Amino acid sequence: MALNHVAWIAVDWGTSAMRAWAMGGDDRILAEASSAEGMGTLEPSGFEPALIRLISDWLPADGVVPVFACGMVGARQGWREAQYRNVPCPPLGPEVTRITPEDRRFTVTILPGLAQKRPADVMRGEETQIAGYQAQRPDFDGVIALPGTHTKWAYVSAGEVVSFQTCMTGEMFALLADRSVLRHSVQAETFDLDAFRAAVADTLSDPQKLAARLFGIRAETLLSGLQPASARARLSGLLIGLELAATRPYWLGQDVVLIGAPRLSGLYREALAAQGVAAEVEDVTAMTLGGLAAARRGEHAE
Amino acid sequence: MALNHVAWIAVDWGTSAMRAWAMGGDDRILAEASSAEGMGTLEPSGFEPALIRLISDWLPADGVVPVFACGMVGARQGWREAQYRNVPCPPLGPEVTRITPEDRRFTVTILPGLAQKRPADVMRGEETQIAGYQAQRPDFDGVIALPGTHTKWAYVSAGEVVSFQTCMTGEMFALLADRSVLRHSVQAETFDLDAFRAAVADTLSDPQKLAARLFGIRAETLLSGLQPASARARLSGLLIGLELAATRPYWLGQDVVLIGAPRLSGLYREALAAQGVAAEVEDVTAMTLGGLAAARRGEHAE
Repeated sequence: MALNHVAWIAVDWGTSAMRAWAMGGDDRILAEASSAEGMGTLEPSGFEPALIRLISDWLPADGVVPVFACGMVGARQGWREAQYRNVPCPPLGPEVTRITPEDRRFTVTILPGLAQKRPADVMRGEETQIAGYQAQRPDFDGVIALPGTHTKWAYVSAGEVVSFQTCMTGEMFALLADRSVLRHSVQAETFDLDAFRAAVADTLSDPQKLAARLFGIRAETLLSGLQPASARARLSGLLIGLELAATRPYWLGQDVVLIGAPRLSGLYREALAAQGVAAEVEDVTAMTLGGLAAARRGEHAE
Repeated sequence: MALNHVAWIAVDWGTSAMRAWAMGGDDRILAEASSAEGMGTLEPSGFEPALIRLISDWLPADGVVPVFACGMVGARQGWREAQYRNVPCPPLGPEVTRITPEDRRFTVTILPGLAQKRPADVMRGEETQIAGYQAQRPDFDGVIALPGTHTKWAYVSAGEVVSFQTCMTGEMFALLADRSVLRHSVQAETFDLDAFRAAVADTLSDPQKLAARLFGIRAETLLSGLQPASARARLSGLLIGLELAATRPYWLGQDVVLIGAPRLSGLYREALAAQGVAAEVEDVTAMTLGGLAAARRGEHAE
């Protein structure tokens, strides 16, 4: 069904999925759609058709609608590479990658990610969410954590991303929970929050013991009937505890904002609360759209 | 081709593979065979046929040959469960699980694994390798480390396994190297030993930074052309470094014996040497056969 009044289209295009929103001139969401055609599944020539499959109903009969996209779509293996910008810098800047598709009903602007030289680090997509938060709180000075497959911790000050650090916690959890020997122990629909809290405290105080504690989950299942809900929570707590031990310089004594999926952000908030840090949780979709809208406004301002 | 003079058959039956040896009366190897029919691939009724496929040429025209087996074949999901023995105890004891197969040309004795109540831990198969080492050095007092998918560290004294600890280092390396985002960075045939040594030292001194250092491998590949041989060695070093940090109470100031695949044992020896610990490396097959032979002698002595 064709949509009227689509002023622009927002796209969050990651490795394993793509989400798109038809946006009104006032940045209200008119429609949304998603597909599993992430960057990891596409050849360079496949991006335009994949996008059209998702947004064709939103394209105008005449005229051109601008598409603003962030995420892995701008990676070297993406549609077209959007060169990283180096921190310290504002999360968004004038350096964007513009594509003129074969289908002339839309144009595409890809926002680049950020890179840090030392310690080496990169992000693609999270910079847009940080910009979304800055759009609503331009004076924010503190730490933004973006829990996910590769959780990012960013120190933000005076409108710039000063430094950041990535932890592979989400990916390690998925690998250990679904593909390691621990998969026999942690299949649960429920979650034991006390076990989570204890495991976070445990790794935070003795991070070096992680290697041994992981197999302990399996052994306790075999020997003392550790329940799956507790085992799963403990695995999550051990890994998030290690991440908090690694990122202590980021969160200790700081204002922390969490931007991520609600359940995962809730676990990080829980873990930080036990360390005396009260974190604010923001909706990841709202931040992504806020950042893409800020990029669009920036284009208009040029 | 039928074999004569087979006095007994040794079997090391793990999760993903099975190895068998036809042994002479003097415990010399007469023949060997292996298959991918590990415990993980078999239903309980499938173990006997899988074993016969491997050893049928070694079975006598008349008479009965005893088979001694260790490993996951005795797990709850194995051929028949061999109840764990609790440490402290000698690595082998009189409690074994005997099976009378439908094929009356052989009998099967499964050696049980060891369990530790606190911290909860289990092993199946490694106890037999420890017994093999004890058979050649009955007075040994020190630490035996068995590098593998799930590396075991065992403190051995006065003929007993006093305590032990398992680290999932091998499994984590395989998951991260083959199935995580790091797979794009670490595909290499060669190995950068200096990068390995630096990474071991790095995690040993700051274990809590592991979570951040892992993604650093990917970021350095993208930003500064980190070479795969160095990236792979660094991943290995970070994980073995974390293991050494976790097991410091085991190896610090101890005589350490390494029993495992030669290449992997060599890496552990290298890492321990940098900590001032000179470790002895033993051949894992010789230790397995030595342990199974000791179990057979124990049966005869009863």
